[in-house]
Amino acid sequence: MTLIERARRGEITEEIKVVAEEEGINPELLRDRIARGEAIIPKNKKRELKRLVGIGKGLRTKINANVGTSSDYTDPEEEVKKAKVAEEAGADTVMDLSTGGDLREIRRRIIQAVGIPVGTVPVYQAAVEAARKGRGIVSMTEDDMFRVIEEHARDGVDFMTVHAGVTLSTLERLKNEGRIMDVVSRGGAFLLVWMIANEKENPLYEKFDRLIEIAREYEVTLSLGDGFRPGALLDATDRSQLQELILLGELAQRAQDAGVQVMIEGPGHVPIHQIEMNIKLEKEICHGAPFYVLGPVVTDIAPGYDHITSAIGGAIAAAAGADFLCYVTPSEHLSLPDAEEVREGVIAAKIAAHAGDLAKGIPSAWEKEKEMGIARKKLDWKKQFSLAIDPEKAKKIREKRSPSIPEVCTMCGEYCAIRLLKEALKK
Amino acid sequence: MTLIERARRGEITEEIKVVAEEEGINPELLRDRIARGEAIIPKNKKRELKRLVGIGKGLRTKINANVGTSSDYTDPEEEVKKAKVAEEAGADTVMDLSTGGDLREIRRRIIQAVGIPVGTVPVYQAAVEAARKGRGIVSMTEDDMFRVIEEHARDGVDFMTVHAGVTLSTLERLKNEGRIMDVVSRGGAFLLVWMIANEKENPLYEKFDRLIEIAREYEVTLSLGDGFRPGALLDATDRSQLQELILLGELAQRAQDAGVQVMIEGPGHVPIHQIEMNIKLEKEICHGAPFYVLGPVVTDIAPGYDHITSAIGGAIAAAAGADFLCYVTPSEHLSLPDAEEVREGVIAAKIAAHAGDLAKGIPSAWEKEKEMGIARKKLDWKKQFSLAIDPEKAKKIREKRSPSIPEVCTMCGEYCAIRLLKEALKK
Repeated sequence: MTLIERARRGEITEEIKVVAEEEGINPELLRDRIARGEAIIPKNKKRELKRLVGIGKGLRTKINANVGTSSDYTDPEEEVKKAKVAEEAGADTVMDLSTGGDLREIRRRIIQAVGIPVGTVPVYQAAVEAARKGRGIVSMTEDDMFRVIEEHARDGVDFMTVHAGVTLSTLERLKNEGRIMDVVSRGGAFLLVWMIANEKENPLYEKFDRLIEIAREYEVTLSLGDGFRPGALLDATDRSQLQELILLGELAQRAQDAGVQVMIEGPGHVPIHQIEMNIKLEKEICHGAPFYVLGPVVTDIAPGYDHITSAIGGAIAAAAGADFLCYVTPSEHLSLPDAEEVREGVIAAKIAAHAGDLAKGIPSAWEKEKEMGIARKKLDWKKQFSLAIDPEKAKKIREKRSPSIPEVCTMCGEYCAIRLLKEALKK
Repeated sequence: MTLIERARRGEITEEIKVVAEEEGINPELLRDRIARGEAIIPKNKKRELKRLVGIGKGLRTKINANVGTSSDYTDPEEEVKKAKVAEEAGADTVMDLSTGGDLREIRRRIIQAVGIPVGTVPVYQAAVEAARKGRGIVSMTEDDMFRVIEEHARDGVDFMTVHAGVTLSTLERLKNEGRIMDVVSRGGAFLLVWMIANEKENPLYEKFDRLIEIAREYEVTLSLGDGFRPGALLDATDRSQLQELILLGELAQRAQDAGVQVMIEGPGHVPIHQIEMNIKLEKEICHGAPFYVLGPVVTDIAPGYDHITSAIGGAIAAAAGADFLCYVTPSEHLSLPDAEEVREGVIAAKIAAHAGDLAKGIPSAWEKEKEMGIARKKLDWKKQFSLAIDPEKAKKIREKRSPSIPEVCTMCGEYCAIRLLKEALKK
């Protein structure tokens, strides 16, 4: 029996117990939400995790960091390092999106290197292997796709993105819509190129039951990918995106009915005033399934700062109910990130997730704010640093310039408002 | 006659013409909004500005950068440099908040150095001068305050923060509320300390007509300061903050009736779910007067990253109708910023303002997004850089790693989705 099935039978499993305790919520409540598909605990049955991670309703907003080689940069060492940097900086999961070098080797090393759930996009491997045979991506077969999916499951991958909503009908909607950017999802593009060349429906859609079977066997969580997510602000919330969401809602229900945990992937590039609507729409259409958003970035004109554009979008999304934020690094849209950019991306996403948690009313998030407010009022710098998302950076900035009065900072010096008021209000 | 009075008589002044053209809006519409106090063009009548800046309804969201010495760092050169860096990076105004060194000299140099509106907080100078005489801030007199205000006006300051809503009644609300952080506004703290020690009402409130007179004479825009803005997330939107807002609404009306341009300053530290409410509240209570928000930061636990926490808050505020965002630098709550931190703060605030403008439906903001989307689709990197908020940073990141196929980037290399789809959809 899978986790979701045991939850349905009323069992509070070890995973549920551990996650409920860490989140500070009632385990029965978490069990019910897992049973209903509103929360998930991604974990391959073959994997030992150092940290179990719950994603969904009533839980802290989680964040994912993408790592992995590209065809231009294939060093496994660096990707393992990036995965570790991400975990240390506070990522809740990592995804290995490698498309260069020995894909299986890199995947296995990343899975060994981190103690948090690991996700992948198996179709990348199927496409890359087909391309390497010299006949192009379009030469991959259905069996290639499912073989690779099973290989990933056997290797211990905890969650997988499957672009099962990329279908001939969504492609039709895309053509009728007339987008600026068409498709920016790599997995979505691989499948579309294949479908167009082979004049066939997407096997991940048509043979979705085969996917469910593998996911069930290894207890892999399915992350239903949004191949039609907008790639430009002007394309946000269009008919092809919504067509795909409808299909993902149907597929989610089928997977859940079969005892498989599911989350839904979401946009992408979305202007601020459309974010809340997108989140609420997913929650309705997909019957409360956890929503995993990629950013979203709220403008396209700030390449080099997409950790900030996505922190804005991610925070608003989380506040509106998104459960899981995929980080974006400063090098998005420009280059494969290095380890320092991974770290910057994780910190920005953590800020967004925490800000969202305050809006969601998560008690532990508010507790931290209270402690920080009190530490500031007391001018207790040691405590402030210990509560900071990045204590080292905060210390470094403060220590760069020394205040003549040790308890204040050099911004206001002797005219520190906190210090002045403390004296005056005592009287 | 002042600008607002001329606008009321139906005149389209040179300032209105220039700003309307730059914003791409109908000058009659802008004139009406200035007449109603919904938009302002801060400009001291003694000042020549290289760039006129409109702030308010229907206009692009503007951003301010604070510079200025503290008692610990008094180098005028550095502050002039920071002001120039801010202007070059795209700040629409700068405020000189100096409290160390020769205050008048620094102010005059900053006013000369930049071509955009300059703001100050005159009470800082009154307080610092009193403190330097050795009898403390509380020894400043009413006449000191108004003398300094007039000096700033004569020096050409375009807008002034006056904490006229810091009154005995707001202090009473503060005491009854029981905040974590009490007061974090420096100007507000100076006045409160003075009021408590001297057992007197705030002269800027009691003698507000004297303030109006000076502002009218020099055409200085009054920025009604929020001395009671929350300084911790848990203090957001409390009774003392709202008490002050009510008084600021009354004072704004009096100033506008006397022909003086006004904006209202707002919080501060606000959780995401309270931001829109705060903006809409100000717009109602202050009859549409432009709203100048200080951030807001959406969490207190990210010192070192408050350019990001405030970009999140600022973007949401702008989307909800805030007109003017005060930047926050990474060194906020830790230290006086250096020039590089000023630059980072300006860029983050520009991103927030632009993201807000998209939600506001500003046509020029959407035009840029469209151009960027098309440039991305075409893989036209030169055009992408030219449209970027910070072309140099974007270039640097891209050039750090060279793609083997020149038209793509190293994130996806040969598997670039845009490139793949372009080919496939052609068929």
